[in-house]
Parts: sequence; structure tokens; C-alpha cells
Amino acid sequence: MTQTRKPSSKPEAREAQNPSFSSSGMKLIVPLQGVVQGRGGLLLGTLVPCALFYFLQLYLKRRRSTANCNPPSPSSEPTLPRTSSRSNLSARGSISRVRISRLATQISRPDESLYYVGLDRVSRDPYHALDNPDGVIQLGLADNKLCLDLIGEWVARNLEDSVVGTGLNINGIAPYQTYDGLMELKMALSDFMHQVMGESVKFDPSNMVLTAGATPAIEILSFCLADQGNAFLVPTPYYPGFDRDVRWRPGVDLIPVHCRSADNFNLNITALEQAYSQARKRGVKVRGILISNPSNPVGNIMTQDMLYSLLDFAEEKNIHIIADEVFAGSTYGSEKFVSLAEILDSDYIDKSRVHIVYGLSKDLSLAGFRVGVICSFNDSVLAAAKKLSRFSSISAPTQRLVTSMLSDKRFIREYFETNRKRIQQVHDEFVDCLSKLGIKCAKSCAGMYCWADMNGLIRPYSEKGEIELWEKFLSIAKINITPGSSCHCIEPGWFRICFTTITLEEIPLVIERIRRVVESCKSSS
Amino acid sequence: MTQTRKPSSKPEAREAQNPSFSSSGMKLIVPLQGVVQGRGGLLLGTLVPCALFYFLQLYLKRRRSTANCNPPSPSSEPTLPRTSSRSNLSARGSISRVRISRLATQISRPDESLYYVGLDRVSRDPYHALDNPDGVIQLGLADNKLCLDLIGEWVARNLEDSVVGTGLNINGIAPYQTYDGLMELKMALSDFMHQVMGESVKFDPSNMVLTAGATPAIEILSFCLADQGNAFLVPTPYYPGFDRDVRWRPGVDLIPVHCRSADNFNLNITALEQAYSQARKRGVKVRGILISNPSNPVGNIMTQDMLYSLLDFAEEKNIHIIADEVFAGSTYGSEKFVSLAEILDSDYIDKSRVHIVYGLSKDLSLAGFRVGVICSFNDSVLAAAKKLSRFSSISAPTQRLVTSMLSDKRFIREYFETNRKRIQQVHDEFVDCLSKLGIKCAKSCAGMYCWADMNGLIRPYSEKGEIELWEKFLSIAKINITPGSSCHCIEPGWFRICFTTITLEEIPLVIERIRRVVESCKSSS
Repeated sequence: MTQTRKPSSKPEAREAQNPSFSSSGMKLIVPLQGVVQGRGGLLLGTLVPCALFYFLQLYLKRRRSTANCNPPSPSSEPTLPRTSSRSNLSARGSISRVRISRLATQISRPDESLYYVGLDRVSRDPYHALDNPDGVIQLGLADNKLCLDLIGEWVARNLEDSVVGTGLNINGIAPYQTYDGLMELKMALSDFMHQVMGESVKFDPSNMVLTAGATPAIEILSFCLADQGNAFLVPTPYYPGFDRDVRWRPGVDLIPVHCRSADNFNLNITALEQAYSQARKRGVKVRGILISNPSNPVGNIMTQDMLYSLLDFAEEKNIHIIADEVFAGSTYGSEKFVSLAEILDSDYIDKSRVHIVYGLSKDLSLAGFRVGVICSFNDSVLAAAKKLSRFSSISAPTQRLVTSMLSDKRFIREYFETNRKRIQQVHDEFVDCLSKLGIKCAKSCAGMYCWADMNGLIRPYSEKGEIELWEKFLSIAKINITPGSSCHCIEPGWFRICFTTITLEEIPLVIERIRRVVESCKSSS
Repeated sequence: MTQTRKPSSKPEAREAQNPSFSSSGMKLIVPLQGVVQGRGGLLLGTLVPCALFYFLQLYLKRRRSTANCNPPSPSSEPTLPRTSSRSNLSARGSISRVRISRLATQISRPDESLYYVGLDRVSRDPYHALDNPDGVIQLGLADNKLCLDLIGEWVARNLEDSVVGTGLNINGIAPYQTYDGLMELKMALSDFMHQVMGESVKFDPSNMVLTAGATPAIEILSFCLADQGNAFLVPTPYYPGFDRDVRWRPGVDLIPVHCRSADNFNLNITALEQAYSQARKRGVKVRGILISNPSNPVGNIMTQDMLYSLLDFAEEKNIHIIADEVFAGSTYGSEKFVSLAEILDSDYIDKSRVHIVYGLSKDLSLAGFRVGVICSFNDSVLAAAKKLSRFSSISAPTQRLVTSMLSDKRFIREYFETNRKRIQQVHDEFVDCLSKLGIKCAKSCAGMYCWADMNGLIRPYSEKGEIELWEKFLSIAKINITPGSSCHCIEPGWFRICFTTITLEEIPLVIERIRRVVESCKSSS
């Protein structure tokens, strides 16, 4: 039944953009060999090669000069053929339009990923109970609004003291500060991560580089670990933002390693080995594995055994591991989250290939604060990342505020107790209601979303059917969810539904809207 | 007397990194032509070309597979030959070291630019009147500390209301906000820039993209306007940070257009034309001109006529103009600053090539807040920059605070009056004291620094002599200043000295320290 999607990584497309010399060379050489080895004699045997060499020289000369200025496209997404700015002359009617970069040309176009299309639709017509009750409900963004009351109270109570302190030290916020983050915040964050990720996780603040959110942290690591055209392996389904963070500017490719519903979308090391060796056969240099743990979008977590296997794999291939652990503290149920950092204490493990990304957007509901961190055990990567954090620094007043919040151990403890309880409550209720509509979810124990199987509602059983269902959710139910295709899931019909953007009280409304779609699907079948 | 420095743009270096096929091809082809055209006859005439073609094929095949993974270095700085990770095996003694990217390898090394070396020295031993009176005094960073008292008072008075408002709206700061900046801040910033840059400058908030400082604004524009390997023209001496912002990740080259002391370092359009046509001859695609106006490091401003000439030049060559106007409000004296935006109102000017960068680090002394803005008139560039601002967003609490500050028109007016007065006061006193030591400065009317001519103190009259003098300042005087070589100045002996990091009262101390260096130079000559 499982229909395989076209894998997202397209080496053919890249080859097409980067016209290879050797294939055209082959066309020249093969007939020539016939002539030379056959009946051509002295004349053909001497003149033809001379002429060909002459044209070859010309060709190579020209090719070298263009190669200098037109490096291969940084992304494996198809690029439009480059239009010369002059060719737009007639279209504009006046002067020629100034040329912009290939990257800007690509990303300035309307989004192709439905993940972004959905977010955009919400931003243009957002649901509001009183002001816009017919608006689109946001279930496509992992934004935790369940505990904003606690955060709000804390900020109202502590803002003044946190930012300007007792005795006002404007010198600590207005002038230039260290770009990779204040040491005070790194220390507070280290303690906080210890509290959130478990007893045995203790990051040295000197191994940290702070960034304006986890998104630039992943981009900076991509720039540091791989050259343009290299690749990372990434288990699917994966967070749609990775394509933007890794491909756009760093130009690093993502090679999907498909996980399947039959395994509850757990990673399989054999599949990882296969993806690696296939990439190598295509001439692609794999530089690392990028995982999200807890998984976004599935919501499951990796076992300690799996983490050891991943480390072994990375060690054997001599590549990096980047673990995005931004949902580490958003677990519920009895399963315990294990950070990659937790299993690094033995002496024979080479930590210099391990890089962990964390942030406060998810676990602490502070997405608007833009606080992320790279924890790396590689001195060169840390040195480079520190310099690159110049492009993505956190503003000092926010750093002061957050330092103070993280240092309030009692608040943090109470917040996490309440937050876990509330996530579980909404999760259980929501998943139960979905189940009554005949929609089952993958087993999960973390994150702010469920990974729902709607393959029974799509027709045809393909990406096309999935997209049509997604459209129905937007138009009939006025609900934005994320289709599996945006997460590169290999099986059609799966959707990520974020439930922390609504309250327990709003669940019936959302379920009622979903019911409309389910019924419309049933009536049309 | 003027000794010309090696220009910073090194096409030869880039060619050396990118082993060209055609040169090795030539070595093969030339002797072959002799054989074929001479006495070789049938056997050599047929077999030799066949064998050569076979090896050519092999060579090209191998070259293609490496070319896919090793794009040319994004920077024109010389790269070390790539060491295979395996080659470090013996050095480590155990397993092989994991490979990092070429970019990370380059930038993780100790800084070569003395601009950064100096900043680093200060950070390790900063002067403090009581705690560290023998520490290094910071005159190498354009940080304005003259009006921190005003900023501090305002923040203490308004923080609470600005960030959480009356009635606490945590929804406006904690969850995800628009990545390219809150509309409220864009509107406040538009009014503020109108107030600072002059009556006729009025930016539409929809033409703005906010970023975490002006530094990422310049990087994002570089990514949007040019492809890797393309170039911008930039008048020298220029701000040392441009090399980092434009070259590192965007991989765009900077081609210096040398300005000279005889013209008070004003730009000359003929020099611009020459630099452009020389670059074109080398096969480099020039995509824009990058200027800082008011000039950093000279402190002069461009006349309206010069701005028109630049626009004409950009129009003629069909390239962009990026104007970094971060010091627009830090002028003193009678000369009036003219923004590039001011001369764009006529209909026949194609605004889509004009991009202005601004920020609050300089004019409003808020470097630690990381607030920058791209003002562009090109819709595609704006669309792309908005998406890239995801990697460099300003935290929401800071945006709320700044919106409130900029909207306090009375405060802004009073701040600017005081700030201009204080800058002028320190400038006049400092330049006067330097002059008494025999050190003359270029004529300036803006910025937080003077551009001092110390060519009489250096021996030999070369970059070497300049660097030795810079070392003396650090070691004898314990003062960090920026040597002209870091600003790519073509004439040795010029230094940027920032004076807004010290108070009027501290000038005698600084001058006394400078006197020591001057005397040491005189006694050794």
C-alpha cells in the first residue's frame, strides 16, 4: 500500500544545473576513436585530433572563465534559467532591471512548501473568538500558549529588577556586549538545561554560543560543519524549517532517511547505512546526521541504545551529529528523555563530532524572545560559531531578563510542573477526540503536536490526495495543519497538528471543524 | 612618497585555489601538436591522441566528482591547503579528527586583521579608572558612551510601561512575532529616521526589514544582491567589518576604490570607473557599490552632487548601491548630511537599485540592543530579506522598548541636541590636543572618531611601519586604535581613533599616553 514519494534530494537536478563537461566530452571522443582506430589514415589521424584539440582548448578556456563567476546553485531546489537583466528590458519598457542574486530570486518567489503557505494564510485571516470567529485556527505552528499566564506574571513582577537591576547599570545593556552571549546567561542556561534535560547533563558555559533562536543556531552549525554541496542525513518525517536553515544560505543538501509508520517512525540504522552509501555512490560528501530529539513532527523520543548506535555510526563514517533538542523539556508520560549529551561521558567517545542545539522558544514558551544556543564539543566549531554569532546576537535587555528568569529556580520548577501537566491534558483530550472521529495518532510522549494518520480520508492515496485534504482543512474547516509532504514523510496521509496554540476549552470547536472535513470526505467517497 | 599597498582583492589567489584545467591542458596539447604535425606519421598520429584522450577522459571524470563537492572558496582570502581529516590521525594518536567546513577552518583561526586583534586585547585587559588603571583604553570601537546617562534615565523611567504595557499583554512579547520586525517599530523607526535624516526623507514602513543590528543587514543585502564570486566596489579607507559581512558567508568580493589624503579621502568617480573596468577585464562581475556615508573611518560626508554621480554610475552600469548610513545622526558642525534617500524623488530614477542600511547602535547609543534596518526599494530584495530576517530577528521585548523610546519625540529631540553637542565638544578638544602633539586629522563633521595622520611617526613609510606604530600604541601607551591597513587605506600612517568611548575628563590621560608613543618615536629616530 505504501507509495513512495520522490525523494527530496535531487542530484539529477543539480547535475542539470551544473553542465558536466565529461558527458559532452564523451560525445566528442567516441566517434573520434572510431575514426582514428579505423580507416582514417594519416590525414584524418593527424588533422582531426588537432582540430578537436583546438576546439577543446577554446571550450575549456571559456568554461573556466564562466566557472569562476557561476558557482553551482547552493540549493538543490530547481533554479530557473538565469535571465540576463537586459532581457527584461522590453518587459519593463524603460531601463533594464537590475539583477539580484540567484538566492534572492529563488526565495523571493511565493513559498512552495505548504508549511509556509499555511502559516501565511493564518497571518492574513487569524481566528479570534470575538473579533474574527470565522478566521483560520493556527494548528500549524509549534507555539506553546498554554502557560503564558505564568510567564506573564513573572515578567510583570520581575522586569524592572532583571533589566536595569537595583541601581541601574545601563552599561550592561546599552553599549556593545559579547556577541556570542553574556557569560551570566550562559551559566544560567547551563543550570537550566541541567534541570530540564537531567542530572547527568551539565554543559560547560565555555562550550556554548548563544544565538537569536535555535533557527540561526542550526544555520551557523551548517555553515561550520559542511561546505556548499555537501550533505547531512536526516530521518523523515522532519521539521519543514530544516530545509530553509540548512539549504538556503549554507547550500548544504539534506538526504532523507525514511522512517515508516510500521516502526512508529523510529529510525532504522540499516536505512541510515543505505542512505549513506547511496549518497557516496552519487559522489555526495555526507558530513553529518541531523536529528530532532524529541522528534518534530512525530513526538517520539530516541532510546539510549539508538543514540549509542548513532554515535557509533558517526564515529565509523567520521561525520558529525547535530541534535536539535528544543523539545527536551516538553515531555509527558512515563518515558524519560535522554539527551545526546548524557551518553558522552565515556573517554573513548570523540565528542568533537557532537553538537547540540537548544532554545527557549518551545520549553519556556519564549519564541518571541529569540534565545537559542549551540552546545558543541569542538573547539574550532565553537571559535567559528562565536564569530558568526555576530550576525545573530540576542539583544542585551532580553539577555538580562532571561538570565534572571532562568535563575529563579523555584519559578522554573513550578513552571515545568504545570506546563507538562497542561500539555498532557490537552494532548490526551485532543487525541481522544480525534480517535472518536476515526483519526489515530502515532504514539508520542513529547512535543506540542500529534502526528495524525488520515490516510483513510485521502483519495487518491498519494501526495496529491494529501494536499487536497490539506486544502479542505483550510477552506472547509478553516484550520491550518502541516501536511506530511512538507515534512518529507514517505507515506501519504499523515499530518502534524499542533495543539498548544489552543486551550482545553477550544478543543470542541476545533474538533467540530475537523468533523466537517471528515464528513465531507466520507460523503464524497 | 605614497607607497601603494597590495590591493586586497586577489584574483590570482582565487585562481590558485581553483586549479584550472586549461593550464595543464595546454602542457599536454603543445608537444602533441608538434608530434602530429611533424614526422610522427600514422602510428603516432593515431595512437598518441587516443591515449591522450583516454587520460583526458579519466582526468575530467575525476575532476567532475571533486568539483561537485569543492566549490571555490567563498572568500578571496588565501586558504590553507585542505588537510584531509585522515592526515591528522598520527597527530591525535587515536581516531581521525572529524572534518569541519572550509569557512569554519578559515575563521576559527586567530584573527589576522589588527582591528579584531586590538578589540581582543582590550577585552582581555580593559582599562578601568579604579579597578584596572593600567589596562588598555578602548579607542578602537565606535561605541558612543557620551549619552548613556540620558538613555539610562529614560529606560529606568519607561521600561515597565514599554514592555508589558498598562494591562500586561504577554501575547505581544512571548509567542512568535513577525520575523522581519513589528509594524509598530517600523512605523516609529520611519518617523525617527525622518527626524534624524531630514525633512525630505520618509521611508515607507513596508519598505523596511528589521534585523538584529546593521551588521546582519549588510550581510543579508550581500546575499540578496550578489552571487558568490561577484563583487562590490567600495571606496577606501573602509570600515573593517565590511570584509566580514560581505566576504565570509555571502562570498562576495570587495574591490577597493582608493581615495587619497590629497582629496581629504573623498571619492573620485574616475577612480570608480577605473576599478570597475579593471574588475570587468579580470572577468569579475561587479554587482554594486557599497558606501558608508557619513564615512567610517574618515568622518566626512558625501555631497549631494557626489550622490547624484554615484546614482548615475550605478544606473549606467546597471548595478546596485548600498549606503550604510548608521552615523547619519552623529554629525556636528555646519555641514548638512544628505541621505541617499533624499535625492530619489524624481521619477526617472530607478529606485530598485537603492538600498539603505541604518541602525540604532551609533546614533542612539544602543549597540547592545541590536536593532538594524534594511530600507530597500526593490520588491524582490525586500521579499527575500524578509525571509532571511528569520536568522537575525530582534527579540520582542526589545522591540517594544525601542518602539516606545523612538515614539517619545521630545526625548529624541533632547537626546540629539545633547548628543551632537557632546560629540562636538569631545571631538574638538581631542583633535586640538592631538594637533599640539603634531598629529593632524582629516577634516570631518560626523562619526565618533577622527582619522589621524601619523605618517611622520612611522619608519619605514610602509604598512610594516604602520603596524609597528600600532603595536607601540598597544604596548607602550596601552591604547587600542585602528590602523589604516585594517581599513584598506592605500597610504600608510593613518589611524582611526574613536573618542566617544571616553569622557571629556579622560582626554588628558589618553593624550598623555599618546605623548609617550610620540616621544618614543622621536627618540628612536
